[in-house]
Amino acid sequence: MTVPATTVTVGQYLARRLVELGGTHLFGLPGDFNLSLLDEMLEVPGIEWVGNTNELNAAYAADAYARTTRGVAALVTTYGVGELSAVNGIAGSCAEDVPVVQITGMPDSAARARGALLHHSLADGDHDHFARAYREVTATGAVLRAADAALEIDRVLRVALETSKPVYLAVPADVAVARVNSAPLRRPLHPAPSDPVALDDLRAALAETVADAAHLTVLAGTQVHRRRAEGELAALADRPGVRVASLVGAKAMLAEEHPASLGTYQGAMTIADDTRHAVDEAELLVLAGTVLSDVMTGLFSHGFDPSGAVQLGIRHAVVDGVTFHDVRLEDSLRVLGDVVLARGFDPLPPVAGSWPHVAAPACSPDEPLTQNALWSTVQSRVPEHAVVVADAGTSLYGSLELRLPAGAELLVQPIWSSIGYTLPAVLGTCLAAPERRSILFIGDGAAQLTAQEIATVLHRGLRPVVVVVDNSGYTIERVLQSPKAVYQDVTAWNWLAAPAMFAPGVDVFTADVRTPAELARALDTALGDPDRAAIVQVHVDADDVPPLLARLGEAVARLQSAARAG
Amino acid sequence: MTVPATTVTVGQYLARRLVELGGTHLFGLPGDFNLSLLDEMLEVPGIEWVGNTNELNAAYAADAYARTTRGVAALVTTYGVGELSAVNGIAGSCAEDVPVVQITGMPDSAARARGALLHHSLADGDHDHFARAYREVTATGAVLRAADAALEIDRVLRVALETSKPVYLAVPADVAVARVNSAPLRRPLHPAPSDPVALDDLRAALAETVADAAHLTVLAGTQVHRRRAEGELAALADRPGVRVASLVGAKAMLAEEHPASLGTYQGAMTIADDTRHAVDEAELLVLAGTVLSDVMTGLFSHGFDPSGAVQLGIRHAVVDGVTFHDVRLEDSLRVLGDVVLARGFDPLPPVAGSWPHVAAPACSPDEPLTQNALWSTVQSRVPEHAVVVADAGTSLYGSLELRLPAGAELLVQPIWSSIGYTLPAVLGTCLAAPERRSILFIGDGAAQLTAQEIATVLHRGLRPVVVVVDNSGYTIERVLQSPKAVYQDVTAWNWLAAPAMFAPGVDVFTADVRTPAELARALDTALGDPDRAAIVQVHVDADDVPPLLARLGEAVARLQSAARAG
Ligand SMILES: Cc1ncc(C[n+]2csc(CCOP(=O)(O)OP(=O)(O)O)c2C)c(N)n1
Ligand SMILES: Cc1ncc(C[n+]2csc(CCOP(=O)(O)OP(=O)(O)O)c2C)c(N)n1
Repeated sequence: MTVPATTVTVGQYLARRLVELGGTHLFGLPGDFNLSLLDEMLEVPGIEWVGNTNELNAAYAADAYARTTRGVAALVTTYGVGELSAVNGIAGSCAEDVPVVQITGMPDSAARARGALLHHSLADGDHDHFARAYREVTATGAVLRAADAALEIDRVLRVALETSKPVYLAVPADVAVARVNSAPLRRPLHPAPSDPVALDDLRAALAETVADAAHLTVLAGTQVHRRRAEGELAALADRPGVRVASLVGAKAMLAEEHPASLGTYQGAMTIADDTRHAVDEAELLVLAGTVLSDVMTGLFSHGFDPSGAVQLGIRHAVVDGVTFHDVRLEDSLRVLGDVVLARGFDPLPPVAGSWPHVAAPACSPDEPLTQNALWSTVQSRVPEHAVVVADAGTSLYGSLELRLPAGAELLVQPIWSSIGYTLPAVLGTCLAAPERRSILFIGDGAAQLTAQEIATVLHRGLRPVVVVVDNSGYTIERVLQSPKAVYQDVTAWNWLAAPAMFAPGVDVFTADVRTPAELARALDTALGDPDRAAIVQVHVDADDVPPLLARLGEAVARLQSAARAG
Repeated sequence: MTVPATTVTVGQYLARRLVELGGTHLFGLPGDFNLSLLDEMLEVPGIEWVGNTNELNAAYAADAYARTTRGVAALVTTYGVGELSAVNGIAGSCAEDVPVVQITGMPDSAARARGALLHHSLADGDHDHFARAYREVTATGAVLRAADAALEIDRVLRVALETSKPVYLAVPADVAVARVNSAPLRRPLHPAPSDPVALDDLRAALAETVADAAHLTVLAGTQVHRRRAEGELAALADRPGVRVASLVGAKAMLAEEHPASLGTYQGAMTIADDTRHAVDEAELLVLAGTVLSDVMTGLFSHGFDPSGAVQLGIRHAVVDGVTFHDVRLEDSLRVLGDVVLARGFDPLPPVAGSWPHVAAPACSPDEPLTQNALWSTVQSRVPEHAVVVADAGTSLYGSLELRLPAGAELLVQPIWSSIGYTLPAVLGTCLAAPERRSILFIGDGAAQLTAQEIATVLHRGLRPVVVVVDNSGYTIERVLQSPKAVYQDVTAWNWLAAPAMFAPGVDVFTADVRTPAELARALDTALGDPDRAAIVQVHVDADDVPPLLARLGEAVARLQSAARAG
């Protein structure tokens, strides 16, 4: 006699997998094609609905949530209108290696097969347009069928785990409520482990390479963070003879106080010359989870040859030109640590403290605030374990110059650089790490794109400190070209009125800041009060930029005039 | 001796074509990959920059602008982050036949060819992901090269004109400033004319069909509006023996006072039984520019057989099963008018006035406002020539019951139904028709998605009347399923604070409305003051719906229980 199989609906199956993988918060918006799916998913204990104000914001929030938990995050949208609104956010997750699961409700299978002219479709009978569009920005995806829904969900989620990329699941309304065998849920999902043979071969190759070197320089990128491999990186940094620089986006991934920490490397834009030389002239360089994009490399001004370096990627490694497949980054970092220990390098003097951080300016506390004074005032106030979030304008460059205290991290989007991302991102960080303080720096231009998510943050009782850097428009673009062009201006808003509009009745600390003294007071009050959210509108000049951004502007100008010269 | 060719940059060429076609307002946001393009385009006299708060809003505004002018509209976005943010708006233009030109700046050709790992890319070296995604939601597109940029621009714009669909143009930064021969600009662009032979054949076929009938019923759809063929439709309606019903989205396209106007048809959900019977039982039915989608047909409850009807499409017609290609809708309508005149039907009694409009409820003016009282209070106040805009919630169904005065029109999105569309749409209608009053009805849920575009509207001195129907969430979804589910709630906002936040210093009329008397006063003040924008927050019950929507809810419930039964 066979035991009758226990079944769950497809929606429940999916939700149970998400809970298992840490994606307990569901971001998104409802719509008639996902109501049945939502009803099923919300049945599952541990799942919590986070309704957003729009789908792009939901995707941004989910992305930041996944970054912060180092797990997956999920958003649920409706067919067509909802999923396409989110696509820019998912593309950002793809560019920056964040495993977001984009789940979309869809018309029922029969209507789709028949090519019914439904609302939210292009009214051409083709219901696969949006799934095809998503192929461009995800690692994999599926339009679920009842027959193999569980298998497909597992396959797709495993790809997210293995690649650290977003994936797409479309669930027709009838499939959402179809019942499937729940037995697969008895085995937790996990990514394929490293190939032990490849790992042994990698160990041997690394030992050979390390044997000839006197010490080792690691340049660490964001993928180390995404793979939750900071522990392995720190263990490596603890070995004698090892130093570690980080790329933008991986700042403070190794504690900036660590004696082996070289701080942030950014090619010719690196703040500390010593750091730049340490990387560019490294005898043996290891690229750990790096993506060598324009912003990461100071517009490709890095002085090392990547092909001469040891490369440790998410699921492969390259040593001396030979590729080792199916080795996971966390494993290859661990193996490298073993190899370095065995090799026994001579210790190096500690570097921490040798690289500068933003200097207090020589201006009076009651003069109009400058970018320099802004960031040096912030410098002394970032609390331990803070989640500092910076949008892609002057705020990115200012925050890169901060020296972060123990346990603090910096969340930025150096590759995708979609402005407005960080405001909903703060919803994600606050939900993912409620015990830590999230502090956001965002330009007035960027903040306009996604302002309404403030409502979700405040109504949920979350308490970030939001600093809107108001410089009357798109300052970072002004640095690059046509500073006086009409398209560089944005309209003037009063951010202090945001709570009154978005969350009347919620108690929020607000401050309008025009001098260093006012900023110091506002930050002290905001940070001293962990039970209230804060919105601080900071006025700085439209042409003023942090030093690092000034350097970028000069570099771009040089490239442009070189291009013109021929 | 050859005369030296005059040249213009590609950016200027494109802008001059847009001016020629009526797309003088450029919606969008700047970004480093489109700055050179914008600098070139803004050189062209007649072009005006409309900076938006985000790219989705820009796409929505451009869509409504094109609908209102009946020309093309253009938006300019930056690579990746910008263009993908707009894709939902462009998909809406595709679903609803609106010729929006999506223009995106791109990295320069050499960097693209080299597969450079640039910001705003997926950092995988493939720079065509986004152009491929756009193929799914546009009629055609091109990534421009200097060599044939002018030819490609003309080809792509002509497709927009001929199909009334959105198109995609990606302009690499170097191509934007490349010089091309300006000679093609001497000949204005226009869509291919009708094939005269096909048109003659169509005339003969129509004459034969009309000969056997006693009179003619036209069901007119939105494509008539998109092709600016309301004149031809009205001329047809003036002929004896002709009656005209309109689909949702084409409401009042033939003046509702016209003696031949049957009002709006929506299958079993048609308000007036006479209208429903006139269409369902028509002896000879002409489908003019119709898309028979679910919302248009009252969930496919139409009682006629489309294959038995004469079908006049944007560029083809079908009579008696035979297809006539390359005949334009405006021409086939005109030919049909000629044929009907020649046939000489007997006149029919006028129908205007025979179909009901929203009845004043029997409630006191100081009781809490109901949906019924809301719409009957609005009914008597819509000014002539108003552009009434209604979002896809209860507002759509309420506004469909309005009887519109002379020259007024209703802008809705019955196929794509993306909530939040209408708020930026009002920016488009105000810019396209500054002399007419735009009146928006939008749910509190929908308004949250795109709220920030209020800033652009107010700072530009535009003066719509914005009515936010605040019913604590997604009422239209509550009607369909799980009315008490957590995902049906939205956070409570104070819309009266919107001017203080988005446009401090701009004088705006605001009112908080809870009774019919308050609504009447607020609307009278708002409409009586053409020089001020107005924001009216109207409170109605979360479970209250306009009668038409109640009917939809019942229809869906019937379908659902039929589906459950088998
Ligand atoms: C979604 C999106 N649209 C457009 C851009 C192009 N862009 C990059 S930075 C920037 C200006 C940012 O201005 P703001 O946020 O005010 O920061 P500031 O540099 O002035 O401090 C723009 C428009 C982008 N990166 N993302
Ligand atoms: C972009 C987008 N996301 C989600 C939906 C699904 N949806 C359709 S109607 C609706 C609720 C609209 O609520 P509201 O605007 O408050 O109008 P109400 O019916 O309450 O008057 C939702 C969420 C949609 N159509 N478009």
